[in-house]
Amino acid sequence: RINPARLWDALEEMAKIGPGIAGGCNRQTLTDADGDGRHLFASWCKAAGLTMGVDSMGNMFATRAGEDPEALPVYMGSHLDTQPTGGKYDGVLGVLGALEVVRTLNDMGVKTKRPIVVTNWTNEEGARFAPAMLASGVFAGIHTEDYAKSRRDLDGKVFGEELQRIGWVGDEKVGARKMHAMLELHIEQGPILEAEGKDIGVVTHGQGLWWLEITLTGKDAHTGSTPMNMRVNAGLGMARITERVHQIAMSHQPNAVGAVGQVKVFPNSRNVIPGKVVFTVDIRSPEQAKLDAMKGEVIRAAHAVAKELGLRCEIEDVGHFDPVTFDPGLVKIVRQSAEKLGYSHMDIISGAGHDACWINRVAPTVMVMCPCVDGLSHNEAEKISPEWAAAGTDVLLHACLEVAEV
Amino acid sequence: RINPARLWDALEEMAKIGPGIAGGCNRQTLTDADGDGRHLFASWCKAAGLTMGVDSMGNMFATRAGEDPEALPVYMGSHLDTQPTGGKYDGVLGVLGALEVVRTLNDMGVKTKRPIVVTNWTNEEGARFAPAMLASGVFAGIHTEDYAKSRRDLDGKVFGEELQRIGWVGDEKVGARKMHAMLELHIEQGPILEAEGKDIGVVTHGQGLWWLEITLTGKDAHTGSTPMNMRVNAGLGMARITERVHQIAMSHQPNAVGAVGQVKVFPNSRNVIPGKVVFTVDIRSPEQAKLDAMKGEVIRAAHAVAKELGLRCEIEDVGHFDPVTFDPGLVKIVRQSAEKLGYSHMDIISGAGHDACWINRVAPTVMVMCPCVDGLSHNEAEKISPEWAAAGTDVLLHACLEVAEV
Ligand SMILES: NC(=O)NCCC(=O)O
Ligand SMILES: NC(=O)NCCC(=O)O
Repeated sequence: RINPARLWDALEEMAKIGPGIAGGCNRQTLTDADGDGRHLFASWCKAAGLTMGVDSMGNMFATRAGEDPEALPVYMGSHLDTQPTGGKYDGVLGVLGALEVVRTLNDMGVKTKRPIVVTNWTNEEGARFAPAMLASGVFAGIHTEDYAKSRRDLDGKVFGEELQRIGWVGDEKVGARKMHAMLELHIEQGPILEAEGKDIGVVTHGQGLWWLEITLTGKDAHTGSTPMNMRVNAGLGMARITERVHQIAMSHQPNAVGAVGQVKVFPNSRNVIPGKVVFTVDIRSPEQAKLDAMKGEVIRAAHAVAKELGLRCEIEDVGHFDPVTFDPGLVKIVRQSAEKLGYSHMDIISGAGHDACWINRVAPTVMVMCPCVDGLSHNEAEKISPEWAAAGTDVLLHACLEVAEV
Repeated sequence: RINPARLWDALEEMAKIGPGIAGGCNRQTLTDADGDGRHLFASWCKAAGLTMGVDSMGNMFATRAGEDPEALPVYMGSHLDTQPTGGKYDGVLGVLGALEVVRTLNDMGVKTKRPIVVTNWTNEEGARFAPAMLASGVFAGIHTEDYAKSRRDLDGKVFGEELQRIGWVGDEKVGARKMHAMLELHIEQGPILEAEGKDIGVVTHGQGLWWLEITLTGKDAHTGSTPMNMRVNAGLGMARITERVHQIAMSHQPNAVGAVGQVKVFPNSRNVIPGKVVFTVDIRSPEQAKLDAMKGEVIRAAHAVAKELGLRCEIEDVGHFDPVTFDPGLVKIVRQSAEKLGYSHMDIISGAGHDACWINRVAPTVMVMCPCVDGLSHNEAEKISPEWAAAGTDVLLHACLEVAEV
């Protein structure tokens, strides 16, 4: 078993970097705080005897040598970046849990046939630069590196320049590494495991997702002196589409979600009818057919609302991925590891996207989940218990031992 | 008659200060650009032989002496501040038109019994610091100076500190001046005069207004992994209330308007259900009963939406004024001046709030309006013709001659 106290200490140490305003974290990707977090993680890897490699997307790979130098390595990891008002565990548990597995193997002098690589993927959150899982997406050949590096944040800052600025452009070619398998430990970010009283979620599938960015253009005009029938109110259009996104998700229950998350209103003045709005839609389902149907409905609804209000409507596809089926062999290994250790468990579908979803395209992958309080995530109040963290990491350890071959 | 070319040149010169991004202006109150605009205006006043006084709210008063030193002065003016994406004429025409009247009187060597004071009121727009017409409101005893000076902009900057920073805290006590009358020339900011083909609007009344700021608090949570029935979505609440504000205004036609203009979403991330929103409502009517009814309906609707979604709802009254009746004697003088000069005219109700609306509480006031293209204002594309500007200023000149007594 792993060392629960050491794991918890590492989580708490990392959380001090890029602290939030309400007990959580704001360590958004490619900020100075992200740079600091990377240095701390790298120093821990070095102390654990691992060899660090960094690719040109800033993905970090810390290798523990295997006994068979020819054998493909087993990768374990997740991401250290957070939402602007994020929690201390989303992603971080997957990286530091993997590190704890290696530290435990070191303590016990256990050697594996395959090398083990602890990984931190750049910009998983997609909060600052959309889409999410950007760097694992480049690794898996979903996006070109040029596309990824040209992404801009809300202030117009460019991904490639920000990566350079914080000093984490590595010399490895992205995606050159070959993997035997990748295991990702993550908090559930949903309420199911806690409600069912289970220690472990064995993740069999991941939801598919569409992110759309909608721009409505009307005419900014004086709120007081412009008669109601002469308005071309982009803000009203956004309100109607927000409601429609909600209705569309509700009409596909169960197994569908959707919301508008990010909003920019122009000119954003009290006495001006908004002439332009830019806002984002996030819709998801584990069923491909539902996901496709929802996307079509949202696009049609947006155009219909725009038409009824006389607005111009542009819709950009900012990112999407299909529902994922994780590797059945690895799923079985995770289930057996939980069983062997005596942890209660259940099969579960991931509601969120994860790096393991993209890496699944180029190598067998699987995920281990642990509960989080009230299912709350992407919120500074995100909370897990040390016991939950330890159980998940124990399962990761045993699955790793199985896959990396002792 | 006034000198149309000189008036137009002055308008164009002033528009170069705080230029917008699309041909208009961004000379928001108490910015550096506002300071520069004030210096330019002061230099023109000095060149015209006027004596400048500034009060502790930064209101500027440039006096042309009268023949009777005991007679109360006639005030003419408006404001030089603009919306963030504002036009070149909203407010500015009223100040520089008044200056042009004085320049014309100088040219012709006309003396008046009463002194004439050209005025620039601070923060008419209310875009940066709510409420609008803040400094004329203090002058008229509506707000205390402490209240006004403690207002904050979206970045948390304080009115009093910003006024100090740009160096325009004057030594006069606000409201100490006594007025015989105040005349304000302004563009209509609405479509009626142009549609009716009239040169001049004789403003008999002004709409009343309520500005509300609504804060909805729910729970930010992961858009992907939070089931629909576990959400407390503040963004959805804002969407519903935005629609209700529109419906309420529509249900009180004619003579009612309403919209949501300013929006702030927290944490404003693509894959996070908004946990908090702050947004502003602007509702207006020239009829007191309608205005009161609408306010009640908006507040009840906001609380009802919040209740159905489980949101906390706080509503702040950010500013309001009752419908205004301008001084009938002055209204008659404006109508006769237009008549005498051969300009087509009609009586009109102002849709926007103006400094003359507050000053109306402490002195007889009236407004002269000229058309603007498509009724468009609070938009950089705001446009008037030099002929419209000249006609309005001619009427101002003749009304002024009448009121200031030659
Ligand atoms: N795990 C996680 O929150 N990933 C970000 C992408 C998503 O929104 O699903
Ligand atoms: N004239 C003008 O736009 N004033 C600002 C206050 C208002 O919104 O009516």
